[in-house]
Amino acid sequence: MADRSSVVIAPDSFKGSLSAPDAAAAIAAGVTRGWPGATTRVRPMADGGEGTLDAVLRASGAAATRGAIDVEGAGGATVHAGYGIVDHAGVPTAVLEAAQVVAITDAAGMSVPVTARSTFGLGRQMRALLDRGVRHFMIGLGGSSTNDGGAGLIAALGVALLDANGRNLAPTPEGLAHLASADAAALDPRLKSCAITIMSDVNNPLTGTRGATAIFGPQKGVVRERVAAIDGTLARYATIVERALGRRVADDPGAGAAGGLGYALMLIGGTMRSGAEVVADLVSLDDALTGAAWAITGEGRSDAQTLLSKGPAVVGARARAKGVPVSLLSGAIDAGALGELNARFDGCFALPAGPASLDACVRDAATLIGDRAEAMARVFAAGVRTTARS
Amino acid sequence: MADRSSVVIAPDSFKGSLSAPDAAAAIAAGVTRGWPGATTRVRPMADGGEGTLDAVLRASGAAATRGAIDVEGAGGATVHAGYGIVDHAGVPTAVLEAAQVVAITDAAGMSVPVTARSTFGLGRQMRALLDRGVRHFMIGLGGSSTNDGGAGLIAALGVALLDANGRNLAPTPEGLAHLASADAAALDPRLKSCAITIMSDVNNPLTGTRGATAIFGPQKGVVRERVAAIDGTLARYATIVERALGRRVADDPGAGAAGGLGYALMLIGGTMRSGAEVVADLVSLDDALTGAAWAITGEGRSDAQTLLSKGPAVVGARARAKGVPVSLLSGAIDAGALGELNARFDGCFALPAGPASLDACVRDAATLIGDRAEAMARVFAAGVRTTARS
Repeated sequence: MADRSSVVIAPDSFKGSLSAPDAAAAIAAGVTRGWPGATTRVRPMADGGEGTLDAVLRASGAAATRGAIDVEGAGGATVHAGYGIVDHAGVPTAVLEAAQVVAITDAAGMSVPVTARSTFGLGRQMRALLDRGVRHFMIGLGGSSTNDGGAGLIAALGVALLDANGRNLAPTPEGLAHLASADAAALDPRLKSCAITIMSDVNNPLTGTRGATAIFGPQKGVVRERVAAIDGTLARYATIVERALGRRVADDPGAGAAGGLGYALMLIGGTMRSGAEVVADLVSLDDALTGAAWAITGEGRSDAQTLLSKGPAVVGARARAKGVPVSLLSGAIDAGALGELNARFDGCFALPAGPASLDACVRDAATLIGDRAEAMARVFAAGVRTTARS
Repeated sequence: MADRSSVVIAPDSFKGSLSAPDAAAAIAAGVTRGWPGATTRVRPMADGGEGTLDAVLRASGAAATRGAIDVEGAGGATVHAGYGIVDHAGVPTAVLEAAQVVAITDAAGMSVPVTARSTFGLGRQMRALLDRGVRHFMIGLGGSSTNDGGAGLIAALGVALLDANGRNLAPTPEGLAHLASADAAALDPRLKSCAITIMSDVNNPLTGTRGATAIFGPQKGVVRERVAAIDGTLARYATIVERALGRRVADDPGAGAAGGLGYALMLIGGTMRSGAEVVADLVSLDDALTGAAWAITGEGRSDAQTLLSKGPAVVGARARAKGVPVSLLSGAIDAGALGELNARFDGCFALPAGPASLDACVRDAATLIGDRAEAMARVFAAGVRTTARS
């Protein structure tokens, strides 16, 4: 049913200032001020990174439950790692977020050198959910601090990583330097009956010049001089565990996501999908768009990256597929990308109301977003009114 | 006739970056990019200050002629002072701008102390136009460097300003300090058959705490310690010339405009009107708005002052009177005035696309304006499209 006054509000988070739900609330308030006759359908978005779990739980409402499990964080200290159980096409599905366990924003994890960090806790969290009968997983990979090739994850799920003397190694870059063999005999057999969806927008392979260590390692603390050595360690690790598991995925797109966590999850049967596409499904974005008059999406900063299946790009494409005009409201818009963005959106807007510092934009983000959304809604409503009048 | 796709584009100048015609061109280009089906009706606005003449001539097209007359600038050096002759309701009307003769941006005039500056040249320009048969004048007062009470103007038009010895004085604050009497016998008799419209938004009286010298003198170079003395000189001047001309206007609203030029023009029979209202008439704004789908106005910076019959306020009121939605696109929008502005406009937008310095906004003004107008037009067109679709 066409609804002349319904507006779908589906922003990503405004990184550094507002979560996606908070940004969506600010936009909805502004739209309602600017167009009092509007009804809003709020669907905060995410791309598999931090905030994915919140966005999915928010959209799922009473049909979802939130839980948390104490597991080892990247550096070994206990973290209370949240997860959600949602109904996805009739099947209870666990929504996990790597950032709940090994977040790059977790101070305890970051206090340990990257060479000693591990994704072990995430494997433990999966195993605990397997114990509870979960067989469908959707795992967001963004925002991790680890570069262990997912060794911790597979170790927690039963793969033995052994040194030349047959002793178990620490599943960390440091430990893997001594890897001699792997044994998958004890790999959790329940994984065979699992469907694992990996949410990520990273297409990099596990190793090499475009690999996890070379591209994402430095921002996690890998010193430049050690990139080659650690990359070599992961390459050898891949050769050994792939022989043990009988599957070859190190060069598949996305193996290099989250320091190789993408690799490990594909190794145990996971399938990579665009995080934003999965989230769009989980929050029933298409249902919300059906018959809507207008959609608004946005993010902290829009640039050429935005077009690479980030949240706003997915909202834009799905809105247009339904014939719904869709506008972009972001914290900032890169001038160089404006031409391409204009081709994808019905109007691109940014926050400041005049010369402004980044600090001021971040500090006043909610007000600025609301004000800009209100202005957009006034113009949209004027367009609607003009046509009705003539 | 309602035209679903015509957009009236009527911005004021963006002071410090673009003239009103240049701002209007940037907006029109953006609107056409954002809404390819739109037709634009461009009406640059002004408020009686610098740019008024250009805006009026631009809107009048072939029906107007532009001329210039060499007269004395504020400091005595010759200026080539432009004017326009337009057809106003069937009557040839001269459009003058005080800033063409005594602009505060004229370096030669500003190199002379404010106490030695005079509006004499403007009176000379009027006299030359009287010689050419002009009897209708519209004179914009904004942007002047003078504080002579308009003594120069009336002196040029024939009023003798005399010292105690019956000698002619310099029509400047300095000269007026010695004023003993005035003789209006030689005042140009053709003024009696003239209609003089004074364009100004200033409501101040000639003298006193809200007078020209106290309020506007300092920004023209009147030192604080001399405000009282010069104000007293103008008060005595008013008493003397009002006796000579038999008219009392020193306390009328607007007498204090342009350092008392408003006073002098009222003294010779002129009528004050809001500059923006007069310009709106001269550019036939109402005709352009009739049946239009949408209007856009704007200015360099919008704040509470904007609501006081500045160009955008007049465009806003006239558009709404015609039932045309009207949006504001300004360089910057003061957050404190946004609530009031929102009540007057269908969407208020400012320039920056992200954190930005004032310098960058000024430097890239045309691009930023065009981009923002394009975004607005996309949203407006989406509103039109949505309604057409449902």
